[in-house]
Amino acid sequence: MKNRDSIPEATIERLPLYYRYLDKLATFEDVEVVSSKDLGGKLGIASTQVRKDLSYYGEFGRRGVGYDVIELKRSLGRILGVDRLWSAVLVGAGNLGRALVNYQGFKKMGLEISHVVDNDLNKIGNKVEDITVQSINRIEKIVNNNDIKIGIVTVPAEAAQDVADKLIDAGIKALWNFAPTRLYVPDDISVRNEDLAVGIVSLIYHLSWDEKDESEADE
Amino acid sequence: MKNRDSIPEATIERLPLYYRYLDKLATFEDVEVVSSKDLGGKLGIASTQVRKDLSYYGEFGRRGVGYDVIELKRSLGRILGVDRLWSAVLVGAGNLGRALVNYQGFKKMGLEISHVVDNDLNKIGNKVEDITVQSINRIEKIVNNNDIKIGIVTVPAEAAQDVADKLIDAGIKALWNFAPTRLYVPDDISVRNEDLAVGIVSLIYHLSWDEKDESEADE
Repeated sequence: MKNRDSIPEATIERLPLYYRYLDKLATFEDVEVVSSKDLGGKLGIASTQVRKDLSYYGEFGRRGVGYDVIELKRSLGRILGVDRLWSAVLVGAGNLGRALVNYQGFKKMGLEISHVVDNDLNKIGNKVEDITVQSINRIEKIVNNNDIKIGIVTVPAEAAQDVADKLIDAGIKALWNFAPTRLYVPDDISVRNEDLAVGIVSLIYHLSWDEKDESEADE
Repeated sequence: MKNRDSIPEATIERLPLYYRYLDKLATFEDVEVVSSKDLGGKLGIASTQVRKDLSYYGEFGRRGVGYDVIELKRSLGRILGVDRLWSAVLVGAGNLGRALVNYQGFKKMGLEISHVVDNDLNKIGNKVEDITVQSINRIEKIVNNNDIKIGIVTVPAEAAQDVADKLIDAGIKALWNFAPTRLYVPDDISVRNEDLAVGIVSLIYHLSWDEKDESEADE
């Protein structure tokens, strides 16, 4: 493998797409060998890019033949770290928190939301799927007793930094943040911001310019 | 403004972050002028990058002084197209759909989920907030009568393409897709994929390599 720091973040973002598609091929379509062209084609990624992305991690596949689906899936699973199941604690048992607990397909990607906490006395003790919501005051015990490294933040923006601090104090190493705010964390903590409002604005931006183009063309 | 196609997608992704931060400054902190350093600093973006991003759209601010917060917010709002409210129809009244309808902060970003449809007879007629869930068979009427351009897809992966086709047939121009699958659409339709599994995998990837580095250091 190349030096880890030299691998582009965009490559890292594409690996899960390859992985999920290989899983689909192996599970539902009974395909044994796939070319870089087919692998990329379904995902809108050029075959040269597929080969380049994979080349950061070693040599896969056979020239002129393609990749063994099961083998490449297994290798990518190891590279991505999803060949094991990572437990996560979710903070915030609202609609979004419940949606994430219910979301099909995380387990396949290596994630199991094993614990849910909240600070709302009306929610503590309730069930989300088969998980009982616990008090956020128990966070340190939960993280330590279950060797949890991932915290998922689905609280309102104004509570998010406080929740992040509590999770980090408890020993969490990676934060998946759904609150519409940036979190300040020490250098050794990974953060992934899922900012829903950013998604819609980039869509509106394109829509809005398409309309402007159309109305100019009409003039 | 520069040629629209020459503006990097990464710039377009950063504009909503600037916009939201300016809104916060204007609304909660009563700040009148902000430097590119302060604007970028809070977002982890270099001041040179801030100036470059904005320069694609014109000249803003005064050298050595900074940007007028209200003025820059208004200009960015126009550029982004969020100076008006765009109606959207959401397909799929499950947990995620409900979470999105409840999500605070879309309106500020120009989005109003005005209609919710589903194909599940058990859900049709129910309320999500104050919106009554309608049958997906009514989609064409809903889109035309309300001049809706945006469709939000929160159905299971296997139903997503069919839903996308129906939305496009009905006249939708932009799709916000939360189903964990890629959608095939005509060239004039914008799609934004919010793939939750990709987010968690990139987080697990980093976590997993940090652990490998640590265990190597221990050896």
